[in-house]
Amino acid sequence: MKAQVLHHYDPALTAPVWVTEETVPDPRIVKSNDVIVRIGGAGVCRTDLHIIEGIWRPHTDPTGTGLLPLIMGHENAGWVEEVGAEVEGFRKGDPVIVHPKVTGGTCIACRRGHDMHGDGKFPGLDSNGGYAEALLTSSRNLIALPRTLAPRDVAPYADAGLTAYRAAKKAAQQLLPDQAAVVIGAGGLGHIGIQVLRAMCAARIIVVDISDTSLALAGEHGADHLVKADGGEVEAVLALTGGKGAEAVIDFVGEKGTTKKGLDMTRAAGSYYVVGYGEDIRVPTVDMVITEKNIIGNLVGTWAELTELMALADRGLVELATRHYRLSEANQALRDLHHGKIRGRAVLVP
Amino acid sequence: MKAQVLHHYDPALTAPVWVTEETVPDPRIVKSNDVIVRIGGAGVCRTDLHIIEGIWRPHTDPTGTGLLPLIMGHENAGWVEEVGAEVEGFRKGDPVIVHPKVTGGTCIACRRGHDMHGDGKFPGLDSNGGYAEALLTSSRNLIALPRTLAPRDVAPYADAGLTAYRAAKKAAQQLLPDQAAVVIGAGGLGHIGIQVLRAMCAARIIVVDISDTSLALAGEHGADHLVKADGGEVEAVLALTGGKGAEAVIDFVGEKGTTKKGLDMTRAAGSYYVVGYGEDIRVPTVDMVITEKNIIGNLVGTWAELTELMALADRGLVELATRHYRLSEANQALRDLHHGKIRGRAVLVP
Amino acid sequence: MKAQVLHHYDPALTAPVWVTEETVPDPRIVKSNDVIVRIGGAGVCRTDLHIIEGIWRPHTDPTGTGLLPLIMGHENAGWVEEVGAEVEGFRKGDPVIVHPKVTGGTCIACRRGHDMHGDGKFPGLDSNGGYAEALLTSSRNLIALPRTLAPRDVAPYADAGLTAYRAAKKAAQQLLPDQAAVVIGAGGLGHIGIQVLRAMCAARIIVVDISDTSLALAGEHGADHLVKADGGEVEAVLALTGGKGAEAVIDFVGEKGTTKKGLDMTRAAGSYYVVGYGEDIRVPTVDMVITEKNIIGNLVGTWAELTELMALADRGLVELATRHYRLSEANQALRDLHHGKIRGRAVLVP
Amino acid sequence: MKAQVLHHYDPALTAPVWVTEETVPDPRIVKSNDVIVRIGGAGVCRTDLHIIEGIWRPHTDPTGTGLLPLIMGHENAGWVEEVGAEVEGFRKGDPVIVHPKVTGGTCIACRRGHDMHGDGKFPGLDSNGGYAEALLTSSRNLIALPRTLAPRDVAPYADAGLTAYRAAKKAAQQLLPDQAAVVIGAGGLGHIGIQVLRAMCAARIIVVDISDTSLALAGEHGADHLVKADGGEVEAVLALTGGKGAEAVIDFVGEKGTTKKGLDMTRAAGSYYVVGYGEDIRVPTVDMVITEKNIIGNLVGTWAELTELMALADRGLVELATRHYRLSEANQALRDLHHGKIRGRAVLVP
Repeated sequence: MKAQVLHHYDPALTAPVWVTEETVPDPRIVKSNDVIVRIGGAGVCRTDLHIIEGIWRPHTDPTGTGLLPLIMGHENAGWVEEVGAEVEGFRKGDPVIVHPKVTGGTCIACRRGHDMHGDGKFPGLDSNGGYAEALLTSSRNLIALPRTLAPRDVAPYADAGLTAYRAAKKAAQQLLPDQAAVVIGAGGLGHIGIQVLRAMCAARIIVVDISDTSLALAGEHGADHLVKADGGEVEAVLALTGGKGAEAVIDFVGEKGTTKKGLDMTRAAGSYYVVGYGEDIRVPTVDMVITEKNIIGNLVGTWAELTELMALADRGLVELATRHYRLSEANQALRDLHHGKIRGRAVLVP
Repeated sequence: MKAQVLHHYDPALTAPVWVTEETVPDPRIVKSNDVIVRIGGAGVCRTDLHIIEGIWRPHTDPTGTGLLPLIMGHENAGWVEEVGAEVEGFRKGDPVIVHPKVTGGTCIACRRGHDMHGDGKFPGLDSNGGYAEALLTSSRNLIALPRTLAPRDVAPYADAGLTAYRAAKKAAQQLLPDQAAVVIGAGGLGHIGIQVLRAMCAARIIVVDISDTSLALAGEHGADHLVKADGGEVEAVLALTGGKGAEAVIDFVGEKGTTKKGLDMTRAAGSYYVVGYGEDIRVPTVDMVITEKNIIGNLVGTWAELTELMALADRGLVELATRHYRLSEANQALRDLHHGKIRGRAVLVP
Repeated sequence: MKAQVLHHYDPALTAPVWVTEETVPDPRIVKSNDVIVRIGGAGVCRTDLHIIEGIWRPHTDPTGTGLLPLIMGHENAGWVEEVGAEVEGFRKGDPVIVHPKVTGGTCIACRRGHDMHGDGKFPGLDSNGGYAEALLTSSRNLIALPRTLAPRDVAPYADAGLTAYRAAKKAAQQLLPDQAAVVIGAGGLGHIGIQVLRAMCAARIIVVDISDTSLALAGEHGADHLVKADGGEVEAVLALTGGKGAEAVIDFVGEKGTTKKGLDMTRAAGSYYVVGYGEDIRVPTVDMVITEKNIIGNLVGTWAELTELMALADRGLVELATRHYRLSEANQALRDLHHGKIRGRAVLVP
Repeated sequence: MKAQVLHHYDPALTAPVWVTEETVPDPRIVKSNDVIVRIGGAGVCRTDLHIIEGIWRPHTDPTGTGLLPLIMGHENAGWVEEVGAEVEGFRKGDPVIVHPKVTGGTCIACRRGHDMHGDGKFPGLDSNGGYAEALLTSSRNLIALPRTLAPRDVAPYADAGLTAYRAAKKAAQQLLPDQAAVVIGAGGLGHIGIQVLRAMCAARIIVVDISDTSLALAGEHGADHLVKADGGEVEAVLALTGGKGAEAVIDFVGEKGTTKKGLDMTRAAGSYYVVGYGEDIRVPTVDMVITEKNIIGNLVGTWAELTELMALADRGLVELATRHYRLSEANQALRDLHHGKIRGRAVLVP
């Protein structure tokens, strides 16, 4: 099959091309629950740029034996192409979205439903992913798509959408109608988070972003208050919350000072959710004690949560702006992402 | 002041008039946190008919020493008229809604926030209520109204709305987007419950009622599926839920067979919420074990929950249909309620 | 292999023998995750008597095509004998306890960790169980035993213990140190429930039973108050709880009037947990509303919960009284159980 | 009355005396719910040393107008001496422990039961406290003591004990029997936290401390594993937890590097609880994302939680080591605390 393959890291992201289109062996069914999915859409994610930079090597290749060449692509949807001998409930041609973590399902984390904390592989990061015509995964990873949703339109939900969903859901389950949530960063993940909050709780939603375009989009997706990140955003949020801050602050940026600002926007006894990453969080212990705030990490989401997100998408409660590129245009998609030219999410299609 | 006074029980509800307008002594401030509220609206509730019937005597007059004459009216809103010596934060003229349970605030139930389980009085049931020009309550019971909300329009939220809110909130906090909630009975409380579910969770909402008018109203308020209660309602709900039933069933009727039907509509591991009352629940223990269902009682709501509901109303996320009567027309309002002539809720106004 | 086989239902439980020892074909590995367990202990449960009576037929044989002959036995532990081609983490000789529900692991209930609500088989009830030399199960059902625990001593934890654990855990997670829990019935399940409460919360534990012997055992296992069920047990519990009842009441009996008494012992806003079964629960809706009580069904437990229970047993926080019978003495064990002659739990051993 | 009064800050803690015994005016009842408590015990807390150092000035005197002279002492118990006109349920001579935060009880935080987040005073920090013969507080702050508990023995529960209780309770409500909790620091607060964990959950308890004496005490109070903080404590905890860390880490130190070590001991998806304070927490956002850890602040506790703690103490499930000093020996008590000479907690008695 054809695939876009990464052969060399590029820490400065200055190489003319990052991936090369090649013909590689087709994936093969090995285990009884293996499934091969023909790719209908493969999301292009900022994490892919970080993989190219080599940032993920300590995590995905801890022994340093070398992962490359690697087919990236961890946000995949398509159609079932072939199933292992014991797969039930799926057959060739079924449209599916693919949960990104391949797990055995028998460790205690999996058995409690926390798939992403189970042992396993994360295709696209530590094994071959979906920048290709087909992908090897397991029947445990499949979620059947309703007829309302096409693979090329939903692929980014598999990781970006799921991450935004899980963080916003955690917040929504705490938030009451007299309370407020701040979303920092209304980009690809943030605008999903806003819609999830809108669908799942009745708190006021305050969106903070540096871009007027993103703020306008946030307003269309249900934000109650729009705050330009012009240096006065903490004061603006405090002014909107009686001087006390918001009960929940979800930070989809995590760099350039948003961690301190995000904590400063968080009300006493409230929670600051870390989703975007880049800088260090630094906070005095005495402040954590006097304010009794919580700092909540967030990692992708569970298979059940991807099912929940598909239910939202099916009913139009969450919408995703996508821009499609041919698989052969993978470098262009990555470059456009790198240069901030993509509104919503880029998706590689056959 | 003028008040409408109940002097005699009427078990059959056949008397020509139930309450008589009289001049009674004005309420007086006794304790340092007492507040007198000038009534702007006093909701007329089915519970008032039950009081007239004498059904509440065992609960409100357990020693049988006699409660009558009684001024009914437990859903009150108005303006602060006079405050005790130590009341802070309220002054004459402030528009307020009145939480119905007057508590001391020091018992363990109050200290955990569960006001309605604290020791105290429930004006309109066990002491004089708001079918009058003024009401004695405590500063603990007041919630300031935003400018968007007039006392005459919000009074029924104080009990009917709060009851619907609490039950729907309990359900909403459990419900996920791939799940379903059934609301049985889309009348006064039910149509608030539907709006609360719509605002606070993303589950599909199925409404069951015998009245086409009520179902139409439910559709306007956000119901996803409307089911006529024509004898086949259990099958209809099962058909809408893959044959398994809904994760939450909120029963605002509680009589004429809805308890068995409601439990039959409830999915394994789901919850059936009792709000309306009348008949007995009867269920085999073995069914409770095999299905692991929950049966959840519901009683009014807390002061904090009334604050939450006012936040929803302030932002237009919950609306209430009301019909206004003069205080002097109290008997007419009660009669119209008794004869099923009121859409939404009746409110006595000055 | 040898097995004890049920050929005929006996509704009155009057037949001289219920099961007959026969040589049946050995179980065979079919699917890649199948496992054959050599039985070290098979718990004899009251549910087995109910199976013989035919009470479970509507649930386990809904189409009426006939389940018999059946090998009963749903509480199994032993040693891995043979594993399917893709089983990881277990090999021949490993001591294991067997979770009773065999599920595929891919339905939404399983994916949320609620195994017992997933689709699947329940060997011993709807397919062949552990009254035999070996049992066919799946690798998903195995929990490795620590060296402290022998199969013959832990088998009854697989169902009876797990059921008691789940109900007591639900209560423990709600109970605070100033509150009280009532356990109705300190028999096989109840005495596990008491120990679980003792280990997992700091509420006072009140045990109600008709038997002085059971009460004495309850006292040894950590009960704070012992109440003889002599007709005055509701009053006794109220006297121990300031006249208000207990925040949690766990009913391991569920017949002979315990449901009404259990609800009467439950405090306002408290929960009554149904574990034992027999009679109908009957409660006026108005009582559910005024008191805001909850009635909570309970069904076995999850694989993760059986892991938790094994952790308690490993550390001696829960102990189980067992009485061992040879497999060939299965009828004797069932008869002794039927006649109330067993303290703790009966277990068939090789 | 006699009181020990702080007149001057001493940032280096080098002055020969810090407080001076003086005769000051008796406190007087002003409001209808005021209560004067005759002090039976006033706990001496490390926070008092921090007050003397001036560390708390930005928090307790934000306008810089000057708080001194101040009577310290925020951990108080004694006997009711005089009550305001509307106090119910308490009379002269009743033994009580005093919740440290004086609140009005009507703000939304109070109404949800979160007293310490309500508006109000904190006697001993921002107004006169209990280093005296009597203290002015409110009836809302009193908890009646059972006969088993004397004021001089329980005073430190009012703040130190309550803080340890709340943090340990938060952890206990998450912890399952197959999981582990780490307690860093088995001093005054830590040894209460260990006992609370032991009483309220069944997780394994690992205690980390630099002192062999403290570790030995921890072992007596129920710790399962004792780890000397000799530089290898992270590795030791990982070795005890299958290389993955503990689901909960409660840090009663919060300085000298425990924050990084504490986070390193925390398992993926686990929680690190901040109680002790001193240094900054510094953590990369990417680590919070990849591990999905939580950092949980902790502030004193609620009135209801102090009631819960008294229930534990009443039944002997939590014990407190105290050392008594006369009120006149306040400087000695503070000095002994400063020089690490106190095992358990120091208490000033009449």
